[in-house]
Amino acid sequence: MKIVAGVDIGGTYTKVGLIDKQGNSHANCSFSTKDYPNIDDYLDTLKNEIFTLVENLPEKAELIGIGIGAPNASSRNGSIENAPNLAWKGSVPIVSKLQAQVNLPVKIMNDASAAALGEMLFGSAKGMTDFIAITLGTGLGGGVVANGQLIDGFDGFAGELGHIDIMKGDGRITGLNVKGGLEAYASATGLKRTVMHMLAKHMDDSELRSIAYNDLHGSTITQLAEKGDPIAIKSFKYTGKILGAALANFVAFSQPQAIFLMGGLVKSGHWILSPTKKYLEKNLLQVYKGKVQLLESGLTDKNPAIMGGAALIWNDLK
Amino acid sequence: MKIVAGVDIGGTYTKVGLIDKQGNSHANCSFSTKDYPNIDDYLDTLKNEIFTLVENLPEKAELIGIGIGAPNASSRNGSIENAPNLAWKGSVPIVSKLQAQVNLPVKIMNDASAAALGEMLFGSAKGMTDFIAITLGTGLGGGVVANGQLIDGFDGFAGELGHIDIMKGDGRITGLNVKGGLEAYASATGLKRTVMHMLAKHMDDSELRSIAYNDLHGSTITQLAEKGDPIAIKSFKYTGKILGAALANFVAFSQPQAIFLMGGLVKSGHWILSPTKKYLEKNLLQVYKGKVQLLESGLTDKNPAIMGGAALIWNDLK
Repeated sequence: MKIVAGVDIGGTYTKVGLIDKQGNSHANCSFSTKDYPNIDDYLDTLKNEIFTLVENLPEKAELIGIGIGAPNASSRNGSIENAPNLAWKGSVPIVSKLQAQVNLPVKIMNDASAAALGEMLFGSAKGMTDFIAITLGTGLGGGVVANGQLIDGFDGFAGELGHIDIMKGDGRITGLNVKGGLEAYASATGLKRTVMHMLAKHMDDSELRSIAYNDLHGSTITQLAEKGDPIAIKSFKYTGKILGAALANFVAFSQPQAIFLMGGLVKSGHWILSPTKKYLEKNLLQVYKGKVQLLESGLTDKNPAIMGGAALIWNDLK
Repeated sequence: MKIVAGVDIGGTYTKVGLIDKQGNSHANCSFSTKDYPNIDDYLDTLKNEIFTLVENLPEKAELIGIGIGAPNASSRNGSIENAPNLAWKGSVPIVSKLQAQVNLPVKIMNDASAAALGEMLFGSAKGMTDFIAITLGTGLGGGVVANGQLIDGFDGFAGELGHIDIMKGDGRITGLNVKGGLEAYASATGLKRTVMHMLAKHMDDSELRSIAYNDLHGSTITQLAEKGDPIAIKSFKYTGKILGAALANFVAFSQPQAIFLMGGLVKSGHWILSPTKKYLEKNLLQVYKGKVQLLESGLTDKNPAIMGGAALIWNDLK
């Protein structure tokens, strides 16, 4: 059996999965990213974790490559550059460093762009040539596929859709200091911020008045919406209204056949999907109306960055 | 000599040029689009005009294809669909109709997308794989090239960048009834509308107070800016500020190496380019700063839709 290691480098944990050609996961593990502020120590550990995982498989397997999804990664440069939530500063040439050690194909890509590739190879975008994947987690990431190919951009940083200004240079400030950036509204963090906005604006009774910002999780907001909490319900509607209008603008750029939503916030189900769908359709230009599907990712039970990382390698072997 | 007919179908005139592989024009002609409300009569005339043009060339030439740039054209469907400024209603299968008559390759594309292809084959985007072309004429059109390929979209209507809402669903209304659509600000028409806005807002003396909206042309606004007219100067700055900020958002989508401006408004030179460049750079996300060139089209003395139409055919023969 041939196998690819898909790697999700996150600020807190690094997660590894061994993925076969059909997208099945055969083993996985994780370790603390923060324990390795030195990149060479980190890559030593990553290599050892992967090799141990392969050796311990019940069936004999050949590791044929390592694919990585990471924040602030440039596929064209093979590097992670100035990632605010990682300890390694400046430009880190992670592909060349790891390749020198393992003598295997190594690839890296922005986690959201990799997730789009994962959706195309293993998920619900199979056979589609034009679609957009949106990850709604702590932030908002984008991956754009057109003509059957991922759009990398000039030096590998395309798809930063969370930092598109949707508020005319005004509004909430994102982690990258963009005023009115989309992810300040449409993400798990954005939803929390919207709950605060609604608590400020409205006088409705709500259990959300008893929960501090730092203690608030998306799942709680969903549970409260299910129970009819007016602030929770208003917050989802507001989020979907802004996200739907932004997606309608994205359609004018690349006219995708479908937009896939993935990431933690999608676990809120129809609470986020219904208003987003409504305001996407409402804001579409006439020529696009009725032609763009808004869909949940086909990989919601899997780690999108791991599946995307693995897709980077498998896609080259098609 | 092999030759391609490039065709620019406009609401008033249809223009034809015979373009060789290097992008040189060997002959051209034009006729009234409005004289032919029946599409079959129109295509008869178009065919005859092209054939006559080829026969009258001093050198013997072989016509190897016809490429058309037109408003509301779908490259994937080979049709013009519901173009508001053309007499032919509904979906017009122009490619199949013309091909049946001429027995040659025929292609059609949205005029702005075709112009992007023309820039890549014959203009200043030679060798570039990731760029955006923006036509600033009566409206604003977009053509996006990524991975060396034009982005068509699911059914050929990608790149409608003039109708992206930049004003949170408020603001000026475009010809397609989009509130806050970019082309209501950044186009020859948008500049005229901005002059009206400035005349309303400011009390400066200005020759523009003596010119009615319908008598106002971009060239006049440029001449007055050169003479120091404060309303003309404010209008260009306002246009560039809005266009630059919008382009910065576009960069987050496909990370182009360059953005080319083309069309009538570009004749205003630095009056439009300087403020656009300033506000593009100012609004770019950190990761893109200093990496995106704003350039004038290399085909400013040529008809972008004709060159783009011809590029559609020549690009297939590369």
